[in-house]
Amino acid sequence: MTKNSSNIMALTPNTSNKRETVCIFGTGDFGRALGHKMIQSGYPVVYGSRSTQISNLIPKDAEVLSHAEAAQKASVIIIAIQRQHYNFLIPLAEVLRGKVLVDISNNLKLNQYPESNAEYLAQLLPGSKVVKGFNTVSAWALQSGTLDASRQVFVCGDDVEAKQMVMNIVRALGLTPVDKGSLLAAQEIENYPLQLFPMWKFPLFLSLGLTAFFFLYCVALDIIYTYIYEKNNFSFFIAITIPNRVCPVMALTLLALVYLPGIFAAIIQLHRGTKYRRFPDWLDKWMLCRKQLGLIALAFASLHVVFTLVTPMRAFASWRTSKGIISQALNNKTEPLDNTNAWLSDSYLALGILGYFLFVLLGITSLPSVSNSVNWREFRFVQSKLGYLALILCTAHTLVYGGKWFLSPSAYKWYLPNIYMLSLVVPCAVLVVKFVLVFPCVDKPLTQIRQGWERKPKYSEQSNHIINKSAV
Amino acid sequence: MTKNSSNIMALTPNTSNKRETVCIFGTGDFGRALGHKMIQSGYPVVYGSRSTQISNLIPKDAEVLSHAEAAQKASVIIIAIQRQHYNFLIPLAEVLRGKVLVDISNNLKLNQYPESNAEYLAQLLPGSKVVKGFNTVSAWALQSGTLDASRQVFVCGDDVEAKQMVMNIVRALGLTPVDKGSLLAAQEIENYPLQLFPMWKFPLFLSLGLTAFFFLYCVALDIIYTYIYEKNNFSFFIAITIPNRVCPVMALTLLALVYLPGIFAAIIQLHRGTKYRRFPDWLDKWMLCRKQLGLIALAFASLHVVFTLVTPMRAFASWRTSKGIISQALNNKTEPLDNTNAWLSDSYLALGILGYFLFVLLGITSLPSVSNSVNWREFRFVQSKLGYLALILCTAHTLVYGGKWFLSPSAYKWYLPNIYMLSLVVPCAVLVVKFVLVFPCVDKPLTQIRQGWERKPKYSEQSNHIINKSAV
Amino acid sequence: MTKNSSNIMALTPNTSNKRETVCIFGTGDFGRALGHKMIQSGYPVVYGSRSTQISNLIPKDAEVLSHAEAAQKASVIIIAIQRQHYNFLIPLAEVLRGKVLVDISNNLKLNQYPESNAEYLAQLLPGSKVVKGFNTVSAWALQSGTLDASRQVFVCGDDVEAKQMVMNIVRALGLTPVDKGSLLAAQEIENYPLQLFPMWKFPLFLSLGLTAFFFLYCVALDIIYTYIYEKNNFSFFIAITIPNRVCPVMALTLLALVYLPGIFAAIIQLHRGTKYRRFPDWLDKWMLCRKQLGLIALAFASLHVVFTLVTPMRAFASWRTSKGIISQALNNKTEPLDNTNAWLSDSYLALGILGYFLFVLLGITSLPSVSNSVNWREFRFVQSKLGYLALILCTAHTLVYGGKWFLSPSAYKWYLPNIYMLSLVVPCAVLVVKFVLVFPCVDKPLTQIRQGWERKPKYSEQSNHIINKSAV
Repeated sequence: MTKNSSNIMALTPNTSNKRETVCIFGTGDFGRALGHKMIQSGYPVVYGSRSTQISNLIPKDAEVLSHAEAAQKASVIIIAIQRQHYNFLIPLAEVLRGKVLVDISNNLKLNQYPESNAEYLAQLLPGSKVVKGFNTVSAWALQSGTLDASRQVFVCGDDVEAKQMVMNIVRALGLTPVDKGSLLAAQEIENYPLQLFPMWKFPLFLSLGLTAFFFLYCVALDIIYTYIYEKNNFSFFIAITIPNRVCPVMALTLLALVYLPGIFAAIIQLHRGTKYRRFPDWLDKWMLCRKQLGLIALAFASLHVVFTLVTPMRAFASWRTSKGIISQALNNKTEPLDNTNAWLSDSYLALGILGYFLFVLLGITSLPSVSNSVNWREFRFVQSKLGYLALILCTAHTLVYGGKWFLSPSAYKWYLPNIYMLSLVVPCAVLVVKFVLVFPCVDKPLTQIRQGWERKPKYSEQSNHIINKSAV
Repeated sequence: MTKNSSNIMALTPNTSNKRETVCIFGTGDFGRALGHKMIQSGYPVVYGSRSTQISNLIPKDAEVLSHAEAAQKASVIIIAIQRQHYNFLIPLAEVLRGKVLVDISNNLKLNQYPESNAEYLAQLLPGSKVVKGFNTVSAWALQSGTLDASRQVFVCGDDVEAKQMVMNIVRALGLTPVDKGSLLAAQEIENYPLQLFPMWKFPLFLSLGLTAFFFLYCVALDIIYTYIYEKNNFSFFIAITIPNRVCPVMALTLLALVYLPGIFAAIIQLHRGTKYRRFPDWLDKWMLCRKQLGLIALAFASLHVVFTLVTPMRAFASWRTSKGIISQALNNKTEPLDNTNAWLSDSYLALGILGYFLFVLLGITSLPSVSNSVNWREFRFVQSKLGYLALILCTAHTLVYGGKWFLSPSAYKWYLPNIYMLSLVVPCAVLVVKFVLVFPCVDKPLTQIRQGWERKPKYSEQSNHIINKSAV
Repeated sequence: MTKNSSNIMALTPNTSNKRETVCIFGTGDFGRALGHKMIQSGYPVVYGSRSTQISNLIPKDAEVLSHAEAAQKASVIIIAIQRQHYNFLIPLAEVLRGKVLVDISNNLKLNQYPESNAEYLAQLLPGSKVVKGFNTVSAWALQSGTLDASRQVFVCGDDVEAKQMVMNIVRALGLTPVDKGSLLAAQEIENYPLQLFPMWKFPLFLSLGLTAFFFLYCVALDIIYTYIYEKNNFSFFIAITIPNRVCPVMALTLLALVYLPGIFAAIIQLHRGTKYRRFPDWLDKWMLCRKQLGLIALAFASLHVVFTLVTPMRAFASWRTSKGIISQALNNKTEPLDNTNAWLSDSYLALGILGYFLFVLLGITSLPSVSNSVNWREFRFVQSKLGYLALILCTAHTLVYGGKWFLSPSAYKWYLPNIYMLSLVVPCAVLVVKFVLVFPCVDKPLTQIRQGWERKPKYSEQSNHIINKSAV
């Protein structure tokens, strides 16, 4: 839905240009792409290269010189060379003294070398000012102008002025520099483009594990048990019936797990009587991946909705329907409408729909562009108040749906509870404890603690700011 | 779906740092979090505090001094203290003369004090340059680096240079400063984090009121009337049947209300013969909340879709189906396919699906990140052209669905029209007037007026710009 | 879902303002709106106008002078006048010498004049420094503060310092300047607000053409053929049945067309033995509109889902169901559950649901705000790995659904294949070639080529950067 309007390649040949010359060492993909973009933004560019002949791919307004000559022409030098070739820079140390060297290299693996490439470069050339940057941008994106993935350029370096010069270049290219501090951050910046959803790992593995468990549980109770004791082959339940049992269970459990750490945090703060002590590590990590847990829960809920809606299209469903109707017809009678049943079926459907509706609202609010346009109070209102309402509605949906089976002995095959009973454990626990926590006699001290009050004051300065713990 | 890659806490100990020292008064949550972030971005930080001992929570690279000593070390002083304690700053007036004081305080209620905290601070210390800022960012977000809610920092102040210094700090922390003008804007900035969806209030209350009215209307006609005159207890209609009657009515009415103010605006401009007079206030306000009205309409439409799709899963629906089939079976005959009926049922479903599809497209286009990447012409095209098309399709959907009942006397219980007739009033009115407005004899003068032409010229300079009234 | 918090009109009357005066020529809509916004951001504003009396619409803190007097007061002059009136500036050439002139004009049509307005202005006044800018912002957006459409301001100009001055003003108004290079880019910038989804044109026309073809194909085979040979009037199939046949075919074909250019690119690179030669033009263009093709495919898939889900609500479907049940009832027997059928129906539904789920995930990831918050590796993982998985699942869905008809002669009416067989051609071709390409003996040389290796080296510098070809 975007448009890449930056395809313009309006190079600026002989204009009254006052931008400082930039030197690029290396004429590989990225060196060329960067040079092209810089010329376009008004920077004179000079390439440092071993051979000065190649270059029908090099932007035609750039000069190509030997490394030493090129370096002398500029105060900022982009090192577009792989780490293994860095030591050829050592003889140039004198020419590079005092210059700003921009390390744009990436590695092939996370933590491939003991120190980051930028720190290694800084060790090799202690007289130069090394700045890390541009490694998160791809050559292809620079050239085509379609910066679909991030426009952010992470920059770090020990010299503030050097960093500022690089950040100005970044801005001139239409990108957004983000200062990450000293060169110690280079390792992190170099790892960044190699990461694959690090925040999603734990939530995804947790979901996969739980899904596998619930799936096998269902296969045992619904297919194997039925086959052994009732001689019915319902193996095709694997395709839709069982997924549609596992999905709602996962959605409800994960949604409850989003709100569980907030409950733990409140209990810990109440117990300690202060908020000025760090939470245990596992709780901190858990709180940081609540958003991911919630979105996975939403995915399961959406699957549950679609699996449910296709029910009438299933061969099994139409077979069951006609069996029921034909047996009535053959008995020559029409069953009257069971009002209780109509109430039950309509209410669990309505509760489910409303719960899912709020759930989707939560999902939309967690889109970066939407959450960026609301303030903290609004974000907390949606994520906490509406989130709890969604949890209540979904739990009620499950209770109304399965309520009648709690007391039926046929629900306990092999003395195991039905799967939807398992799904109610965490959400009910969360809701009960939350219900206790909103009682004034518990809520009041908790609010005081969160505003900086301490039972046994140890840290005495007054707290000056309303604390914003999101969705606690 | 984001990743918080800014968890890096790469503090810069002994680097050749040239950033100016920043002083922070107050060691509460926010003072500490801000100091931490600043040190990370290369600023030397010195805390001013009553006691210089506390501090195992204070970032370890920061100095802690008395207020006066700390203030002397920096030209920018962050006042991280609550408003009630501001008067302790009066004795320090001499030290603070000419310094930039950044007021970051928030209140607990909207308009808690007659003047904003920043203006109050400026009155107390007339010799200092007060800048308001940072109050929209939370301590938690600063520390954890997960800036899910806004990255925007609203800044205001009377001294442009002072404001510039603060905005540079904001930028260095990776946040986006937004200049809001003079210190008069401080009240607004202080109210901002306390707001709870101010633009949504009117649309939400309007929807709630209308929903309640339509709901009771349906309860009266569908449940009470049926119970009295036909002795049927259909109380379970409350769960799904009636919501699924109210939702489409609300969706259609609200969608029409999105386009009604544009119609009014056109009539007013045609009547006045100029666009250079302000619209009445109520119309201005209405026009500003069209987006919200449209999104609420979309929410109702989505609920209508899901409520409709679960129909076959309802006990009532399967009871009615089997009743129909069994009565046919007992009469030993199969009814032939009614071709007219098949056409009607298929066309209102298809119209509804296409209308909803366009409606969702409108919703997606109003996501901030999508609407930011289209130009005005494209935005207007989608919101106006596609919006009207959606309105036409949805109105046609309702007309085809309910058409046969217009003439049936059973549709007028208690001499009241059926609810879907009510829902057609506003959309039909909008569509009819819009149809008149696109006639060349009306459209031509209107376009001229919108390009700056006046029937009785009073404001004589030529208009130089194509007028962009969105979705009028 | 946003809030326009920038409605504050906190004008700065007598503050210690150090911003430089800005002059605006022309008091039309845009001149007034811009002046208002500038005063709000602390700029003294002076208007140049033919008459100095008008002005109850002009912001009251602005001065209104003659053009020459106004121009002398400022070094930046906004030319808020239509192009046809530019020549009245010629007599002012001496006053305007050395000044920065900001051309903000727009045209009514794409490429209305041979040269851009800004270049024309620069020719008229060669002594002034012309900068193009602000033309993408609307007066209405500036005044109301609801910058729903883009906050980006494209700027270009030959003088870097002049451009910098304008970009600083843009930043001060809370907008984001984007440097587009020299004044040659002005044409592109002036065309930008007149564009209507240029990147969508080809994908949309392609989809319309294919849809029309498939629709007519279905009408011929399903309605006309049935009418001629079976005397059944199924004309109502036009509303739902046929759209629901065309939509999935379009979705699958377009999704395959998203991945086809990547296949071509790989084959071309393998054949050439180098990546250092440009792809043919059609392939480049095709690759740039893959996102649009994918989103249109998603739209068709969504329509297919909804069309399928409303099936049980159709008069035709309930007629067919009751016919089946009644014929069973009249024969006094119940058909047993056909296990194979249950398996088939459940698996194609499940495959379709999972494929659609991944498809929606792809769609969400291509929202600008989401794709901006992932790195290249993550973006490629989702768009390539998950995308292929979606394609495999959707192809399998179609195969399982239609498999049984491949061998049935009744599927070949008029010797033409059924439409879903046509839909399988492109996806199967893509999947088969892709399957070959992932074999190590093919994948290894391809990976080497993409890392810069060449079969017959012609361009000798080492490549320094991991190549990021998105989703190839």
